[in-house]
Amino acid sequence: MTLIVQKYGGTSVGDVERIANVAERVARSHAAGNQVVVVVSAMSGETDRLLGLARAFAEPPRGRELDVLLSTGEQVTIALLSMALAQRSVPAVSYTGGQVRILTDDAHNKARILEIDDHNVRGELDAGRVVVVAGFQGVDERGNITTLGRGGSDTTAVALAAALKADECQIYTDVDGVYTTDPRIVSGACRLDRITYEEMLEMASLGAKVLQIRSVEFASKYQVNLRVLSSFAEGEGTLITTEENIMEQAIISGVTLNRDEAQLMVTGVPDRPGIASGILGPVAAANIEVDMIVQNLGADGATDFTFTVHRNDYERTLEILQGVAPEMGARGVEGDSRIVKISIVGVGMRSHAGIASRMFRALAAESINIRMISTSEIKISVVVDEKYAELGVRTLHAEFGLENGAARA
Amino acid sequence: MTLIVQKYGGTSVGDVERIANVAERVARSHAAGNQVVVVVSAMSGETDRLLGLARAFAEPPRGRELDVLLSTGEQVTIALLSMALAQRSVPAVSYTGGQVRILTDDAHNKARILEIDDHNVRGELDAGRVVVVAGFQGVDERGNITTLGRGGSDTTAVALAAALKADECQIYTDVDGVYTTDPRIVSGACRLDRITYEEMLEMASLGAKVLQIRSVEFASKYQVNLRVLSSFAEGEGTLITTEENIMEQAIISGVTLNRDEAQLMVTGVPDRPGIASGILGPVAAANIEVDMIVQNLGADGATDFTFTVHRNDYERTLEILQGVAPEMGARGVEGDSRIVKISIVGVGMRSHAGIASRMFRALAAESINIRMISTSEIKISVVVDEKYAELGVRTLHAEFGLENGAARA
Repeated sequence: MTLIVQKYGGTSVGDVERIANVAERVARSHAAGNQVVVVVSAMSGETDRLLGLARAFAEPPRGRELDVLLSTGEQVTIALLSMALAQRSVPAVSYTGGQVRILTDDAHNKARILEIDDHNVRGELDAGRVVVVAGFQGVDERGNITTLGRGGSDTTAVALAAALKADECQIYTDVDGVYTTDPRIVSGACRLDRITYEEMLEMASLGAKVLQIRSVEFASKYQVNLRVLSSFAEGEGTLITTEENIMEQAIISGVTLNRDEAQLMVTGVPDRPGIASGILGPVAAANIEVDMIVQNLGADGATDFTFTVHRNDYERTLEILQGVAPEMGARGVEGDSRIVKISIVGVGMRSHAGIASRMFRALAAESINIRMISTSEIKISVVVDEKYAELGVRTLHAEFGLENGAARA
Repeated sequence: MTLIVQKYGGTSVGDVERIANVAERVARSHAAGNQVVVVVSAMSGETDRLLGLARAFAEPPRGRELDVLLSTGEQVTIALLSMALAQRSVPAVSYTGGQVRILTDDAHNKARILEIDDHNVRGELDAGRVVVVAGFQGVDERGNITTLGRGGSDTTAVALAAALKADECQIYTDVDGVYTTDPRIVSGACRLDRITYEEMLEMASLGAKVLQIRSVEFASKYQVNLRVLSSFAEGEGTLITTEENIMEQAIISGVTLNRDEAQLMVTGVPDRPGIASGILGPVAAANIEVDMIVQNLGADGATDFTFTVHRNDYERTLEILQGVAPEMGARGVEGDSRIVKISIVGVGMRSHAGIASRMFRALAAESINIRMISTSEIKISVVVDEKYAELGVRTLHAEFGLENGAARA
C-alpha cells in the first residue's frame, strides 16, 4: 500500500471553499487506495492576524507565548479539514504537533525537529483513517508548544514522510511545479518533470521560491521523494529526488534571477594577508550577511575586494566600509545597488566541461558586461547591471535550449 | 500565602485593551503577595466565529474535531494575557487544559472534569509565576482535546481552586455581584455581600444568570469560596460560600423573575392512578422539559392537571396534549404563554414559618392573582399573569425589605 504525505499551504486552505477543495483531493487519494497523511498550514492571513494581536504586548512578539498563540492557526485548519473529510464520508482524525509528538528542541519561534514518534499516526493509518496533522509546530521535552518558524509546515511534511518512510511527500502550492526559469520573464519557461535535491537547493536559494530550503535539505538527507504541485490545477508537478532516480541527467536545469542584492567594492587595497577578514569582519559584526565574494590582485600589487549583500543592507555596509577603508590603506570604496545576479544550475555541469565559457560567450554576444563571477560544483552565477536582467535570463534560457525542458547531455 | 484563582470571561478579554486591563488587575493581586492562577475564556465573538467556519462542514458542528477547533479560542487568550503580564514585568506562563492535565471523560462538547493534576501549576506558583490557564477545556485519557460546553470556564476555575485548595475563586464578569433582584425592574435592588451555595443555585436556575449552575454545584461540593465581581469596576462583589461562613442568616436573599415559561392545563380528567404519567409521558418522549407541576382533585372527582414548559416548547406541547386528552377522557386542554414565574429564595425559610402566607398576602393586596404555586425547602415560586411581572417583583422586594440587602431574621 502506498503511503503519501500531502502538504497544503495557507493559500490552499485560505477559506472554507478552498478547504473543501483540499478535502476533495484528499478524498480522491484515499479512495484510490493510498494511506494519506495531510499536513496543513494556518489559513492565509491568520498568522498575521494573531501577530497583530500580539503586537499590543510585545514588539516584536517572541518567545514561548508567541508559539502558544501562533500554533492555534494550524489547529483551526486541522479541525476544519477533518470535518470536511467527515462530511465526505472519509474517516479522518486531526493531530496537533504535540499529539503526534513531534519532538523539537526548545528554541521557541525557530525550533528544530529532533524526533517524530510515528506510533499514533501509524495506528490511525492502519485503522483506515486519514491523519490531518498541524504543520509548523511541535513540543519540547517538557511539553511546551514550539513552532518551527515561518514556512515550517513544509519541514513538518518532509520530516513526517521520513519518519513514516512514505513513498512520496507532495507539497501543494499555488504554482504547478518548478520551472526552468521565471515564466514572467521567459514565456517559454518549462516545467521540470524531475530535478535533484542539489539543484532544487540552488534554485531555491537563488530566488525560485517554491519550497523552503530547510525542507529540501531534510528531504535530501532522508532521501524523501518530494513532489511540488498545484492545489488548484491538475498535473504531475515536479519531483525532487536523488540523482539515481533521474534517468537522463540534465546539464542545465534552470536559470535563476536574484534582484535582492547590491554590490560593494573596496579598491586598491595594498596586498597583504588579512585583507578579507579586515574588510568582512566589521560587516559580519553588524550581522550583515555576505553572498558572493571576489578578490582580484591587480598588476600594481593592489587588490580590489568585491562582494554582495542584501539590498536592504547596502547603505549600512557602505558606511561601515567607509570607516574601514582608510585603516586598510585602500584607494576608495564603491558600490552599486542596481545590479542583479543571474545563475545557471545543473548537476550535469560536473561531467560537462565548457559550460561556463558557453555562458559567458552567450552573454557577451548580447553585449552584457559581467561584473562578478562565482561558481560552485553545480552552479555558475554572474552579477550584471540591473538593466540586463531580463535579456540575460532569456539569452541563457535560449542558449541552453531550456524551452524544451531541462537541457540534456 | 494566599492562593487566589481568578476567572475572566469572554467580555472581560474581548479585545487587547481589555486584556491589558485584566493584566493590570492580575498584576496588582500578584504584587499584593498573592499566588495567582488566572483562568480565561475565548475573546468574545471568537467562539461564534469558529462555529461559523465549522458550519461549512457540519450542521450542527459537533464531536471530537469541534473541540480541537473551539479550544483554540482560549489558547489565544492565555498567550496574549501572558504576554501582557510579561510586558508589566510580571512573570507569567500559559497552560492549555492538556498541559495542566485537566483530565475529563471523553464526552466531546460537554465533557466533565474527572481529575486535575496540580503538580505543574503548583510548581509554577512556587517559582513565583502567575499561571494563566485556558478555561473550558481538558483532555481525555488518550490525549484527545475535550471541551466542557459553553460557559465551562467557570467550572474550570472552580475545579482548579478545589484541586489547589485555593483560598478564594474569583469570577470576574460584567456585573458587580449578585443582586436581591433585577435592578432593571427594582431600582432599589441591592448587591448581596454573601449568599449560600444553595441560594445561588436557586437564583441561577431561576433566571439570575450570573454564574453557570455547574460551577456553583462544584463549588458547593468542594466548599470553594466563590466570589462574583466586576472586571470593569472596583468593589467586593458577592461571596458565595457555606452557611457556616454567613454570620447573620437571611430569611430571604432575593426575588427572581422568569419570563421564559408557558402554562398548560388538562382539565376535568377523571381521577384514577396514572394521570400524571399518562399526560407527561408523551411530553417527555418529545424531549420537552417540564418545570412546575400541580395536580388538584376537584369536588366533582375530576382532576385539573397543570404544568409549565419553556415558552419555545409551548405550541408543540399544546399539540401533544390535544392528542392525549381524548384518550384520558379529559374535558379539555387550555394553555397560556403569557405568564411569568416569580420566586423568593432564602435559606432562612427553613427556620421561619409563615413566609409563604406573607408572600401570598402581599400579592393579594396588589390584586395579583396567583395561578400556580410550588415550593421547595428554600424557595417559593408562583405563576402569575405576565402583566403583573414587574409589580409582583417590586411588591415582594419591598415586602421582605430587600432594599436594605438580604432580609435578616
